[in-house]
Amino acid sequence: MGFATAAVVATDTFAPVSVPLDAGLHAVRGEIAAVLSMRHNGPRPVRLRYELVGRGDAPVVVLAGGISAHRHVAANAEFPEKGWAEGLVAAGRALDPAVQRILAFDFIGADGALDLPIDTADQADALALLLDHLGISQLQCFVGYSYGALVGQQFAIRHRQRLLKLVAVSGAHRPHPYAAAWRALQRRAVALGQLQCAESHGLALARQFAMLSYRTPEEFGERFDAPPEVVNGRVRVAAEDYLDAAGAQYAARTPVDAYLRLSESIDLHRVDPAAIRVPTVVVAVEGDRLVPLADCVGLVEGLGPRGSLRVLRSPYGHDAFLKETDRIDAILANAIRSLGETA
Amino acid sequence: MGFATAAVVATDTFAPVSVPLDAGLHAVRGEIAAVLSMRHNGPRPVRLRYELVGRGDAPVVVLAGGISAHRHVAANAEFPEKGWAEGLVAAGRALDPAVQRILAFDFIGADGALDLPIDTADQADALALLLDHLGISQLQCFVGYSYGALVGQQFAIRHRQRLLKLVAVSGAHRPHPYAAAWRALQRRAVALGQLQCAESHGLALARQFAMLSYRTPEEFGERFDAPPEVVNGRVRVAAEDYLDAAGAQYAARTPVDAYLRLSESIDLHRVDPAAIRVPTVVVAVEGDRLVPLADCVGLVEGLGPRGSLRVLRSPYGHDAFLKETDRIDAILANAIRSLGETA
Repeated sequence: MGFATAAVVATDTFAPVSVPLDAGLHAVRGEIAAVLSMRHNGPRPVRLRYELVGRGDAPVVVLAGGISAHRHVAANAEFPEKGWAEGLVAAGRALDPAVQRILAFDFIGADGALDLPIDTADQADALALLLDHLGISQLQCFVGYSYGALVGQQFAIRHRQRLLKLVAVSGAHRPHPYAAAWRALQRRAVALGQLQCAESHGLALARQFAMLSYRTPEEFGERFDAPPEVVNGRVRVAAEDYLDAAGAQYAARTPVDAYLRLSESIDLHRVDPAAIRVPTVVVAVEGDRLVPLADCVGLVEGLGPRGSLRVLRSPYGHDAFLKETDRIDAILANAIRSLGETA
Repeated sequence: MGFATAAVVATDTFAPVSVPLDAGLHAVRGEIAAVLSMRHNGPRPVRLRYELVGRGDAPVVVLAGGISAHRHVAANAEFPEKGWAEGLVAAGRALDPAVQRILAFDFIGADGALDLPIDTADQADALALLLDHLGISQLQCFVGYSYGALVGQQFAIRHRQRLLKLVAVSGAHRPHPYAAAWRALQRRAVALGQLQCAESHGLALARQFAMLSYRTPEEFGERFDAPPEVVNGRVRVAAEDYLDAAGAQYAARTPVDAYLRLSESIDLHRVDPAAIRVPTVVVAVEGDRLVPLADCVGLVEGLGPRGSLRVLRSPYGHDAFLKETDRIDAILANAIRSLGETA
């Protein structure tokens, strides 16, 4: 086992809310209490929450998204609410619960219960614990987007015998210093809000600044070209309604510590691409303001013969994975098919 | 006169601190009390503060910079402290006090005394009042950078008979919606600070976010590539020392209302390029995250035969004017020389 630093001390503390997988049903959720040896903090109790969709004998693909993603990727019969990757996980898609089992999980810290530095290595080890619990020895593929791509890299390095292929979308082997500075300032906006009692106000502002890094000037130019208004003696620009809604929605559903610690976690990430010894498809978006194309090229170069690069041009920048679902699906279909050839 | 909306009601309320210009000395500062008819607020008392450097009979060039610029552009015998455009105003440069008189002024609102919407048209009319006071009928050239370029456009439109040539660096005829959103969020950081009795803290954060828009990922990638540190249980990235210093320095010297109202003023700016009827050189920086090249091209297209474009590639982005002084000087030399041919 590749995760000697982590140990399950209790499983099934919470029973899955649906019937067991091997009954052939489609979706199951569960929550596990475990102790994880964390890189910066030593052993800590954590909760591992997952959702697994598909038939019990199919190969398993993990799908992991950005820091605000979670275990519910798409609506299904048992959990009909919308997921964060609708359009990518569906019948006929490269990620099709009729063909594979799709496993997704809440990142540790996403519940706000860990107010300490969280490493992407910790997330990878938490996933390995979860796979033990589920009796899954190997993943057909890890599809990671944004923060999920970083976790996928760590999983490939730390648990390589459990992974056949990695698809890393919009995430490089280290954060770009400019993007790191941008995130650091977002965390300061939260800290400013915390000074007295405007915590959600600060979190909303941080999210609004983050939105500017997820999207592009092209998109804003098309959507928000109206002149500003003077409202109550203050200038209000066209994008502010949109940003207000985005900030409020995010602050309402996100614990402040979850945001702070997962944001930090992106900035803690640094791996040696040469240590990733599974076939890896790197997907980069030209115009991504957080993860420049050049950094994805650097990752692919470090991967050597195991790496390949797909470049997408999109006005959605870092959010292209969530917006360009047809084009991303085509890339995933190719990536998973090429796995069949090499595995 | 092209500024019927503005009227001087009192001049020389404050005597110049140096001897009068026509004595042939090099630098003079002055401050005028006036009433300005403001676009969004009607008549308001304002202070017009200027510095004029050069010989009394030379042609006058106005140099106006970004919202944090001021009347002191370069050290001189009378005022030896460093100015904001050192390296561009000097012996042998295109802007040489031995050849022209260089006029610079504090933007209205820069003293924090105007807590209301300020239009770029107001700044242009304030300059016209100042020229009346100084007995200057016509400018050889208006060199505007960033906010100064917007003011120059308004001056060319509203007071065209007083201007022979405009050089507009890193400023288009309207703000880009993405840049406007970025500034709106900076103003929210200030508002959050005000809510928390941490006004200078909020202003420093706003300035730090602004720094990211003034500079480029290329520069940050070169300067701040060190790994993050965990300090007191918090992740601190490599650029934070730099950003701390930039924020503190700015907050110490800038009234909060000055920042808010001049930031708004950029977002209020919208002119029709076709209304600018003086020869205009537009200087754009490829990689400027605030003023995209495409918007400068739009400005030049609207100028028709009166416009020409110079494009600079710089890792300093929006701040190239202040950093690439040799290359900017060469562009200014050409622009001022070509004026001689057409005037």
